[in-house]
Amino acid sequence: MAESDIPDGWQARGTPPTLFRRFPFPDYPATRRFLDALADLSAQAGVHPQNINFGSGYVNVTLDATASGAADAGLARRIDALLAQG
Amino acid sequence: MAESDIPDGWQARGTPPTLFRRFPFPDYPATRRFLDALADLSAQAGVHPQNINFGSGYVNVTLDATASGAADAGLARRIDALLAQG
Repeated sequence: MAESDIPDGWQARGTPPTLFRRFPFPDYPATRRFLDALADLSAQAGVHPQNINFGSGYVNVTLDATASGAADAGLARRIDALLAQG
Repeated sequence: MAESDIPDGWQARGTPPTLFRRFPFPDYPATRRFLDALADLSAQAGVHPQNINFGSGYVNVTLDATASGAADAGLARRIDALLAQG
């Protein structure tokens, strides 16, 4: 995955590369709102992250590597955009 | 944490021990229903798991060790009961 294809704030991990980002939140309600928005986005998009790992104040998101060998940068940007809606 | 205090299907991990259980599901909608029920339970109980880790077909739940040194077996059993509602 070319550096230029990795959205700001995300890390490429593994081979083929998945995309990973940690989203910190001040409290559980804020974390919950993000998780709900992420579930709605997944339903709309018909895809969901490979893994979501969360506690009261953070959500770690890992996006699958696709058949073409790179995780979905467009999905990463749509997830980022959920923050602006929060 | 005494063996007898660990609900069936859960594992005690670490010192002080947290409680861990993996819940497998046949598909993402079933996973989603369990996550939503878990969020409702957390809101009602006023406590939430230390960590939840999920993908399309599983949810891994880790419950905090409490000040008394044992994770909350009662909460574990209430989470188990959500399966019966699914």
